[in-house]
Amino acid sequence: MMRLLLQILRNNSSLKSELNGGTKASALPKLFSRQLHAPTQPPSFGIAFDIDGVLLRGETSIGGSPQALRRLYYHSANSCSIRGGVPESERAKELSKQLGVDILPLQVIQGHTPFRELVKRYEDDLIVAVGKGAPGRVMTEYGFKNVLSIDDYASCFPNIDPLAQYKKWTKMQPTDREMALRTDPCSQRVQAVFIVSDPVDWSRDIQVLCDILRTGGLPGREIAHQPPLFFANDDIAYQALFPAERLGMGAFRIALESIFNRIHTNNMEYTSYGKPNPFVFKNAENVLLQVLQSAYNNIQSSGEMQPFKRLYMIGDNPSVDINGAKQAGHPWFSILTRTGVFKGIGNHADYPADLVVNSVEEAVDYILRKEHTS
Amino acid sequence: MMRLLLQILRNNSSLKSELNGGTKASALPKLFSRQLHAPTQPPSFGIAFDIDGVLLRGETSIGGSPQALRRLYYHSANSCSIRGGVPESERAKELSKQLGVDILPLQVIQGHTPFRELVKRYEDDLIVAVGKGAPGRVMTEYGFKNVLSIDDYASCFPNIDPLAQYKKWTKMQPTDREMALRTDPCSQRVQAVFIVSDPVDWSRDIQVLCDILRTGGLPGREIAHQPPLFFANDDIAYQALFPAERLGMGAFRIALESIFNRIHTNNMEYTSYGKPNPFVFKNAENVLLQVLQSAYNNIQSSGEMQPFKRLYMIGDNPSVDINGAKQAGHPWFSILTRTGVFKGIGNHADYPADLVVNSVEEAVDYILRKEHTS
Repeated sequence: MMRLLLQILRNNSSLKSELNGGTKASALPKLFSRQLHAPTQPPSFGIAFDIDGVLLRGETSIGGSPQALRRLYYHSANSCSIRGGVPESERAKELSKQLGVDILPLQVIQGHTPFRELVKRYEDDLIVAVGKGAPGRVMTEYGFKNVLSIDDYASCFPNIDPLAQYKKWTKMQPTDREMALRTDPCSQRVQAVFIVSDPVDWSRDIQVLCDILRTGGLPGREIAHQPPLFFANDDIAYQALFPAERLGMGAFRIALESIFNRIHTNNMEYTSYGKPNPFVFKNAENVLLQVLQSAYNNIQSSGEMQPFKRLYMIGDNPSVDINGAKQAGHPWFSILTRTGVFKGIGNHADYPADLVVNSVEEAVDYILRKEHTS
Repeated sequence: MMRLLLQILRNNSSLKSELNGGTKASALPKLFSRQLHAPTQPPSFGIAFDIDGVLLRGETSIGGSPQALRRLYYHSANSCSIRGGVPESERAKELSKQLGVDILPLQVIQGHTPFRELVKRYEDDLIVAVGKGAPGRVMTEYGFKNVLSIDDYASCFPNIDPLAQYKKWTKMQPTDREMALRTDPCSQRVQAVFIVSDPVDWSRDIQVLCDILRTGGLPGREIAHQPPLFFANDDIAYQALFPAERLGMGAFRIALESIFNRIHTNNMEYTSYGKPNPFVFKNAENVLLQVLQSAYNNIQSSGEMQPFKRLYMIGDNPSVDINGAKQAGHPWFSILTRTGVFKGIGNHADYPADLVVNSVEEAVDYILRKEHTS
């Protein structure tokens, strides 16, 4: 699952006077106070951290990430984090704990954020949300009015999962449960499917998704045209707690696609919003500008923000993070760490980064030195 | 999951005098009594029923199968059933209930029976057994001395399944648990992997199998040569209780293979013992002859059994059952029913059967008429 933390820098060393030791740094309040001193000076640099394998391994911080982030906060105007599976409000609390810096819900951007853009198209349609956590609640908070998690959806079709008797699942989210009672999926076509976070029960999910996709949204009925299918990301592997990379949403997509294409005449059609899709990088840049814009407007009605002079992508996965930054082009500068997927000595052969370092702390050192001497 | 019930016929209408109404028919006792009357007359015809979609849908009998089977029992010398997931002794009890005829453990042959042939090769090696039911116990009863179910195996590697926190599984089999305590899998190479029955937790199993196969049997260690991988069958879909076919072991194989081939340099190597692999049909024929041989030897020391004049395959799946019978060739005669996967009006275009009928009862009518007028 893709997670990204975005950080804006301002070329202003006087901010060092704002240091307040090891205490937890806060983002937006600093922004305001800073703007009162220098209201016309816009942020000009940004950093995108890949979280898994760069800042965290599982739930544990690595590579001196808390220290590195605190240092940045002394210079930061704002920050955003991209992740998946739970609503922004809950994720902000988690990340604040894990990284030791205050992150506001407003600042949190997740892997499935692009799904928000599709509300107009599917606002009142029956849609199915797939993945760990509370995918139904995530989509509901985005404004989709007729969402069912695949847990609730599958529970409406007796015998749809022939292996169900061998499984005992954790209780469903209450909100999802209510939704299940409000809707009758058996008589309503599913209009779209969203893979919000990493699917948990692959055998059930692949089965039910094949049913939905082959029948035009009415499992057990006749073959019909495939409804649209959206993936929040396409990461085949990511670095978690286990020594070797773990399979991600991209691997689930490969499994679903291979089986679907084998049992169905037409190939599976889908849209993936994950890295290295340049949309993610463009979107990160835009959201950051929007967040800043709103912050600035609280102080002064100054017009459009200037575009960023440079954006750094710090990642551990050459084919995803570095490749994605390359595809996104200007103003992205790619930095590859050795704390996650990539463990090589030199640079990566197929997707060479602009810079290779051992840890995120080294990367932040480099950036701070560079931006303060430029 | 492949399940087959084999039935031998004897061209002897006098057996009709043995009819005893609707009471449960018994196989071997009849055999003995019959042999005492006609010790030198060998069985000459056989029938192989595909169980899912022909005799049962889920756990429910269909197509008048209990009546059809009772009729055959009046003429039968012996019967064998091929299935998966639990030891032969337990399966015999189940099938006896579901089909209303006594089936003895001796008569039960399951989808993973060919694994028995590999005991000599892996008797003392650490092997991993995958699938629903009690795959570890199945392999242990075959004589493998160092078996671990994938449940037990995975539980020995902290964090190997990043989705484990989202799952609550049913308790493991006590025998498997003991096995887990006797073995230290972390320091021992897995020498072979057996997919005994349909895997339940695909996300965990695909992840762990990729770990085992890529590292030569030591998850988390360096890449090494792939250990042998065996599948009990390769059925992509089968007819269960749900109106549409459900994905089977063949679909799991496709998912595992597609992901493995994407993340690994060498393609996945495996052996599948499932239909339409002609081995299954040859094996069914041999086992039946062995069972008969032993039964005959209890009465007289007559030599080798004569080969079967004709063997009928009654199946619902053209690409598996009918295609398999065609590949096996003489003495197989294929009959396609409309009670399962195949629901067409005429014959199947790609894999035409020698005969197409609506139900197993029609097929048995045809066979009895044919064999008693020949």
